[in-house]
Amino acid sequence: MPARPMTPERVNRRWLFEQRVDGPVGDHNFRWTEADVPSPGEGEMLVRNLWLDIAPTQVLPLLAAPEEGGMTPGSPMPGYAASQVLETRNPRFSRGDVVYAASAWEDYSVIDGTGYWDATKVPAGVSPELAVGTLGITGIVAYFGVTEVARPRPGETFVVSAAAGGVGSVAAQVAKILGLRVIGIAGGKAKCEWLVSEAHLDGAIDHRTEDVAARLDALCPHGIDIYFDNVGGEVLDLALGRLRPNGRVVLCGTTARYRQATPPPGPSNYWQLIMVNGRMEGLLGKDYFDRFPEAMTALKKWLDSGQLRAKEDVVVGLEGAPRALGRLFTGENVGKQLVKIADPSPGLGRS
Amino acid sequence: MPARPMTPERVNRRWLFEQRVDGPVGDHNFRWTEADVPSPGEGEMLVRNLWLDIAPTQVLPLLAAPEEGGMTPGSPMPGYAASQVLETRNPRFSRGDVVYAASAWEDYSVIDGTGYWDATKVPAGVSPELAVGTLGITGIVAYFGVTEVARPRPGETFVVSAAAGGVGSVAAQVAKILGLRVIGIAGGKAKCEWLVSEAHLDGAIDHRTEDVAARLDALCPHGIDIYFDNVGGEVLDLALGRLRPNGRVVLCGTTARYRQATPPPGPSNYWQLIMVNGRMEGLLGKDYFDRFPEAMTALKKWLDSGQLRAKEDVVVGLEGAPRALGRLFTGENVGKQLVKIADPSPGLGRS
Repeated sequence: MPARPMTPERVNRRWLFEQRVDGPVGDHNFRWTEADVPSPGEGEMLVRNLWLDIAPTQVLPLLAAPEEGGMTPGSPMPGYAASQVLETRNPRFSRGDVVYAASAWEDYSVIDGTGYWDATKVPAGVSPELAVGTLGITGIVAYFGVTEVARPRPGETFVVSAAAGGVGSVAAQVAKILGLRVIGIAGGKAKCEWLVSEAHLDGAIDHRTEDVAARLDALCPHGIDIYFDNVGGEVLDLALGRLRPNGRVVLCGTTARYRQATPPPGPSNYWQLIMVNGRMEGLLGKDYFDRFPEAMTALKKWLDSGQLRAKEDVVVGLEGAPRALGRLFTGENVGKQLVKIADPSPGLGRS
Repeated sequence: MPARPMTPERVNRRWLFEQRVDGPVGDHNFRWTEADVPSPGEGEMLVRNLWLDIAPTQVLPLLAAPEEGGMTPGSPMPGYAASQVLETRNPRFSRGDVVYAASAWEDYSVIDGTGYWDATKVPAGVSPELAVGTLGITGIVAYFGVTEVARPRPGETFVVSAAAGGVGSVAAQVAKILGLRVIGIAGGKAKCEWLVSEAHLDGAIDHRTEDVAARLDALCPHGIDIYFDNVGGEVLDLALGRLRPNGRVVLCGTTARYRQATPPPGPSNYWQLIMVNGRMEGLLGKDYFDRFPEAMTALKKWLDSGQLRAKEDVVVGLEGAPRALGRLFTGENVGKQLVKIADPSPGLGRS
C-alpha cells in the first residue's frame, strides 16, 4: 500500500512538551514535530487553530513532575485558541464556525468542546484576535476580578501590577471606568507611557527604574484600597503593607513564583490583613463561567465606545509559541500575548 | 504640710511598661510601682480593677520603638478589664456598676469609658470573670470570625489552631454547634484531651508530639474548607496547602510573628488561594462593635444550655500580670487567660 500523500496544507505542525520548566521558558522546553491531521470521532470536531491564547498559568503544569500532577513529556502542549471548525460530529457547532475552545499548540486539533471552560462560538462581529484577547478569558477574568472580587467603590485607590499585561491592562481600565483612582506598576518606560497616555491611568510606576515603595508612598499617600496582584513577590508585600482599612487584595497571578521549583516565601506583610480587617482573595475565572456573557457584553460596550483600549501583543507563526510564552516572564509583552497562526477561511462559511 | 497618709487599701499598685519585647515576655519587660490613687475629672470615673483581660495583641505596641508607634517606656500598661466604679463623674455609669472597659494593669484606674471599644456595663447576672472571658472581646471576636468571616455551611471541615486558647476554644465550639466537622490543633496532651472530651471536637492534633501535616491529611482527607488561624507560621502554610475550592482562611492572630523584631516570611502557599478561589481575611473585632450584643446573646444562650463550655485560665494577683501575658506565647494557658485582682464589693451596690 503506498504511503498516503501529505499535501503541505494538511501537515499538522505541533509543539510537544519536552522538558520541565526550571528557569527561562522557551523552545528548549518543547519539541517541534509534524504529524498527520487527525479525524474527529463521535461528538468531536476537527478545527484549524487560528489564534493561540498565551497565558502565564500555562506554565504551571510544566513546572511539576508527572507524578506530582505535572505534564507528561511528549504530550501536545494544550492551550485555548480561536479555531475554525473544518469537520464536525458535534451538534453544537457547524462547519465554518469560529470557536473559542480548549485546543493545542498545533495547526489542527480534534476537540470535543469541553475543557477548563466549555467552547463558545465567536459571534460574527468579533474578530478571532479580540475573541482570545480582551473578550477572551483574560479580559473576562480581569472584569470579574475588579467587579466581583475587589467590589470597588468610586474614589477608592486601586493599584495593579503587571498593569500593561493581558489581565492588568483590562483590570486597570475597568477600574478607571468605574471611577477609581488607578495606579499601574509595569516594567519599562514605554509601558508606563501607554498606561498614562492611552489607558488614562492616574499614575504609573516603572519597577525597573523607580523605587516602587517610595513611588507608592508618593502616589498613594493615604494607602491602597485595592491591590490587584499579577506578580506576587516583593510588590505584593509592599502593597499589603500599605493596605487601608477594609482593603482588598485580588490575587490573580504569581509570576514571581512561576519558573521556580522551590516556592519563594510568601508575603511577610500578610498579617496586615488582620490590622486593617483586609481581605486577600483568589480569582478563578472558572467560578464565573455562567456569567461570561455578562462580562463580554460590558467589555464590548466599552470597547465600542472607546473607553476601553484593547492591547494585544502578537507573535506571528506557530513556530513562535514557546517564545511567546517566555515573553510573559521576561516582561517583553505589552498587552495580551497572542500567537497568530492563520486567518479564518471565508470559503468555509460562518454560521 | 505632713505627707498624706496612704492606707494599704488605697495604694495604687501598678505595672508600667519598661523594656521593649524582643523574646520571651515577662516581668523584665515591666516595672512594678506604687502610686497614689488618682481622682476622676469631669466625664471620668475612678474604678477598682477586678479582672484583667490578657490578650496576645497586647504585645504588639511593646514590640515597636516609640518613634514607630510603640509604647513609651514608663507608661502604665493598658488593657481591658472588668472593673467596679468607685466614683463617677460620667453620667453613663453609676457607683457600684461593674464595667468592661479600657483600663490598665493597676489596682485603680481613672477611665473615661472610651477606648478601642467603648465601655459596657456588665449585667447583674454575668460574673466579671465571664464578662472578660467568653462573653468578652475574645468570645465575641471568635463568634464573628466564625459566623461572619468564615460564613460556614454545615458539614464543612473546619480547622482551628491554638484551639485550646481563648479565641480558639470558642471558635472551635461555635463551629461545632453550627454543624461543622471541627479539628483543633493545640500543644500538649491535656489540651487535646480537653478539645475532644469536653469541647466535643471531631479530632485534635498535638503539634508538640505529632506530625501536623500527616495528621491533617489523615483527619481531613478531602481538604480544609475553613482554617481559623491564631498562630500564622508553618501551620498557616500547611492549612493553605490543603484548602478546598472556595476555602476560607480567617486570620485572627499571628503569634508566630509576635516577639520578633524582624517579621518572619509569610505563607509560601498563599498562592493556593488562586488555585481554589480561596479567601484569606483578617478579623478585627472593632468592625463588629455595633453587633456585640448579638454575639453576647448567642454565646450566653449556648453557655446556659451547656452546648458551649467556658474555659478560663486564671492567674491570681496583679503581680502575675506580666507572667500571664507571657503564658500566651509559651502555650501554657488553657483557655482564655485572665488575671484576677479582686472581687467586686457588694457594699457599693450594683445598679
